[in-house]
Amino acid sequence: MGVTTSGRSIVRVTATATDRRVDAVAVESPLTIVLDGDVMVTTMRTPGHDLDLAAGWLVNESGVRASTDIIGMGAFATATSDEVDTVRLSLAPGVRPPRPRAFVTTSACGVCSADILAAFAGPDAALHSAGWRMPSTVVAPLLAAMRERQRMFAQTGALHAAALVGPTMDVLWVREDVGRHNAVDKAIGRALFDDLLPLADHVLVISGRISYEIVHKALTAGVAAIVAVSGPTTLAIDLAREHGLVLIGFARDDRFNIYSGSERVDTGDAT
Amino acid sequence: MGVTTSGRSIVRVTATATDRRVDAVAVESPLTIVLDGDVMVTTMRTPGHDLDLAAGWLVNESGVRASTDIIGMGAFATATSDEVDTVRLSLAPGVRPPRPRAFVTTSACGVCSADILAAFAGPDAALHSAGWRMPSTVVAPLLAAMRERQRMFAQTGALHAAALVGPTMDVLWVREDVGRHNAVDKAIGRALFDDLLPLADHVLVISGRISYEIVHKALTAGVAAIVAVSGPTTLAIDLAREHGLVLIGFARDDRFNIYSGSERVDTGDAT
Repeated sequence: MGVTTSGRSIVRVTATATDRRVDAVAVESPLTIVLDGDVMVTTMRTPGHDLDLAAGWLVNESGVRASTDIIGMGAFATATSDEVDTVRLSLAPGVRPPRPRAFVTTSACGVCSADILAAFAGPDAALHSAGWRMPSTVVAPLLAAMRERQRMFAQTGALHAAALVGPTMDVLWVREDVGRHNAVDKAIGRALFDDLLPLADHVLVISGRISYEIVHKALTAGVAAIVAVSGPTTLAIDLAREHGLVLIGFARDDRFNIYSGSERVDTGDAT
Repeated sequence: MGVTTSGRSIVRVTATATDRRVDAVAVESPLTIVLDGDVMVTTMRTPGHDLDLAAGWLVNESGVRASTDIIGMGAFATATSDEVDTVRLSLAPGVRPPRPRAFVTTSACGVCSADILAAFAGPDAALHSAGWRMPSTVVAPLLAAMRERQRMFAQTGALHAAALVGPTMDVLWVREDVGRHNAVDKAIGRALFDDLLPLADHVLVISGRISYEIVHKALTAGVAAIVAVSGPTTLAIDLAREHGLVLIGFARDDRFNIYSGSERVDTGDAT
């Protein structure tokens, strides 16, 4: 059983109080599946049941249908930590193997979270102007503005949204997609056409959760802050902190959590 | 602007009534990004703002940072439908290109939804025993059982869960992960080790949304039905219907929608 949650120090902001506490955060870390020495895939996942994960992935991607189709399977910690980061296996003769594919496009495939973080060079430019601060009072209006624009397009209840917010805290545009990553790509892609990159002092508002890849996209585009309706993963928090990205999660109309960059969020009296 | 929602005929079951209606469903269809004739990626997405999507993807995956880094970009319908399914572009000299990678592992990369559906051979065996039916009264208890098991492991609010349910409608196990796909892989992988595949008459309960890939995983493992807390995409519904998979979405304690296989769900008096 791996570690599924890990504590991170956060700042919790409500209408009446601001306090620092340790929150349980969903762990995200890379697992590499290796078949006879060849890397098949590196996927971000929550540790635990790693052999189940590799087996289920094989069912979908290869001819594996019975336990005897897999021989010599094991979970290993190959990196500097004690955590499992690799599953190695062999298939029985005649079983159709998966096609190799790499989800993680850095050279860090198959190594630990620390190496994944180190492999990202970081944003091209400063994320914030000197003295840039985000007032906590804008969080609720930004959420409301995104919801308003979402309602115009989607009544399905199944679309994610990403809004890009300008330096004066106005919503520039909202993009929707069944995929969180796609909604973020659309919001940033629109900014590219307006030659707004790097997006210093801009805020990205997201309807869903914050994974490593969402933070990676935000940092590459150079945004100052992410505000999300759901929570971040450990790796998302760690990457945001390393580069000074403001990370706000579980944002509701009357409360939110700051996971990174709290010194740049003006909570004032938090009223 | 592409088509973001599409109507599908569904059966809506509440505590007091069962009625057939047309519901707006989030569209999911493949978009292929082609750089100078080479396929870079095929991603499932909601149509609309396809150039924004391609541009934002390039920012994250390549050296593109200004609009002039992209030359000759256009959206095309290459398949038999009128819908855009391909973005073709060239990069300015000296701009670092993305590494090619294929998210969709079938040979159908870069073609339309119909071809994606046709490229999947379907489940190895029948999904249901003769006369297998699922009583509508089990939906709420299955959701409750999964929630109960989730609570034991996660207080993060950011983990997805998948439960595998046996032919007698008992929850066999629950698996959690930051990724929906991983939670499903873990639930199915566990079944492989018990040599339960193909999973005829089994039900997969999922905490999130139902995309094409989730239905693909379920069909490959041979499950009889999916019950999900959130909604399915068009492509998920179409694939489920093609192979007779029961697909239930927006499952709450007192209501749910049947998107596929309603003839196998016993709504009775729906009380």
